[in-house]
Amino acid sequence: MSLQDANPLQEAFAISLPLETNLEPHLRNALQHVLSNEGSMVRPQIIIDLCAAYAFPEDNARQLAIALEYFHTASLIFDDLPCMDDAVERRGAPCVHVEFGEPSAILAALALINRAYALVWRAMSACPAPLQAVAMQYVEEHLGVSGLLNGQSLDLNYSALPHTLETTQRVAMGKTVSLIRLTLVLPAIICGAPPRELQLLDRIAVFWGLSYQIVDDLKDVLQGSGETGKTTSRDLSLDRPNVALLVGVHAALERLDRLLRLGDRALDRLLLQRPATTFLAKLRGTLQQEMRHVTESACAGRSQGGS
Amino acid sequence: MSLQDANPLQEAFAISLPLETNLEPHLRNALQHVLSNEGSMVRPQIIIDLCAAYAFPEDNARQLAIALEYFHTASLIFDDLPCMDDAVERRGAPCVHVEFGEPSAILAALALINRAYALVWRAMSACPAPLQAVAMQYVEEHLGVSGLLNGQSLDLNYSALPHTLETTQRVAMGKTVSLIRLTLVLPAIICGAPPRELQLLDRIAVFWGLSYQIVDDLKDVLQGSGETGKTTSRDLSLDRPNVALLVGVHAALERLDRLLRLGDRALDRLLLQRPATTFLAKLRGTLQQEMRHVTESACAGRSQGGS
Repeated sequence: MSLQDANPLQEAFAISLPLETNLEPHLRNALQHVLSNEGSMVRPQIIIDLCAAYAFPEDNARQLAIALEYFHTASLIFDDLPCMDDAVERRGAPCVHVEFGEPSAILAALALINRAYALVWRAMSACPAPLQAVAMQYVEEHLGVSGLLNGQSLDLNYSALPHTLETTQRVAMGKTVSLIRLTLVLPAIICGAPPRELQLLDRIAVFWGLSYQIVDDLKDVLQGSGETGKTTSRDLSLDRPNVALLVGVHAALERLDRLLRLGDRALDRLLLQRPATTFLAKLRGTLQQEMRHVTESACAGRSQGGS
Repeated sequence: MSLQDANPLQEAFAISLPLETNLEPHLRNALQHVLSNEGSMVRPQIIIDLCAAYAFPEDNARQLAIALEYFHTASLIFDDLPCMDDAVERRGAPCVHVEFGEPSAILAALALINRAYALVWRAMSACPAPLQAVAMQYVEEHLGVSGLLNGQSLDLNYSALPHTLETTQRVAMGKTVSLIRLTLVLPAIICGAPPRELQLLDRIAVFWGLSYQIVDDLKDVLQGSGETGKTTSRDLSLDRPNVALLVGVHAALERLDRLLRLGDRALDRLLLQRPATTFLAKLRGTLQQEMRHVTESACAGRSQGGS
């Protein structure tokens, strides 16, 4: 099902923000660039599969999936700006601000956000008012000052914070877990999943989100280690939170392993309650494979004298 | 009523985006700065008065009023950024990016937008689902690529466009009229106003929005004319759309007068349909007074040799 759906979902990403003929050309070009360079689409596919597990109408599921991918894409455009991470490349193409200037990048990101709220709204129109209220509060909480925005601000201002595991976790909870919660829990809220399943999905989102962040931290620390035999790190030079920098590669790997096992436990329980969420077990496999790959890099790095 | 409500509305602006204790300090400071420097609050007051004219619940009216003021404030924060208008002062205080840096300014603006969508949602929960759908589409249309964002992009890229009255009007329709439509028409949609009243409110929004822009253009052209006897203009130096620069002060004043009379006609008809909207007649008075003031400046400027 995932393979069959890959193309329709990419197409939905490209066409769900209609660009009228009278749109100002700079903004149009920036948006066309964004809409034709979609990401891996793993997140929207999870939403489609999750909604299917709860027999939620397909059209509404797709609206929700694209909405979340638009929010995510907008957050990347802002993160990449010169005043934030000052990135030059994203999704294999030049960043929007590099190609079309900062104003058009900002306006394009705002256009994605505006459209995303409208799509969430439409997706939710299929469910009862009390669920809509809970879902909207969930969106607000995880995108706003209690979620993603706080995470991004903590990340940018990490140098002013105590460099502890607790701080790195606060950043990851805001910046990474918020969007994964919106991917795993919000669809289930909208589908009317029972509280026990929401709780298990929330635990999976937290453990996988924190795991995902550690894998990212390890990659950052180990990148180029094959060639140099030494660790190189962008997080180190920018003074950004990184678990592997803080406690070392070995302890980070142990922590990752523990988090994945906690996630497994929650997932096993969810599968008993809702066998149709078995697609999540495949995703867990991908995460574990990635962990194994990172572990091997770490061992190779160490055997060459790196730490 | 307006005077009595002034303080509660300012307070609502200040407290409707709760800042939790674990909020990152830079973002917290930026948001506190924004929330304690509210604007004139004319727009939210219009929304409160309009909702009262349709006997809409007060709490919901206040949520909608603050939501629109948050959207408006966020748009100003983005407009003021160095890559856009590069402004240094706003509402009698330093711009957010000047005081707290660009990243915190951007994140604060996004926090206002996120909260504003949640407040619009809550305000609308008091009305039937079909009205909610129409209202949400209206919000999307006027804030997004068909409205405000297109207007801002046209404004920034005016130098690449034909310098005609038609272009200045396209910019004003996007940048100025969109937000005035959200102030005058959206509340009426949510209140379930009949189509004829929606149509009249839309005409008032268009004519007043275009008038307001011309008054702004005239001020820009005539600013400092008292001291120098010559016109000075920021729009001229930045190559931004300005009706008075394009057709001259005299023709701009004539155009303003014509637009205000068209607005008057729509308002007179609305007052027959819905006498409770009489507060709009007071606002018309304010606009006319401002026009008279600008006209006098123009005459004084001309008598001193300016054109």
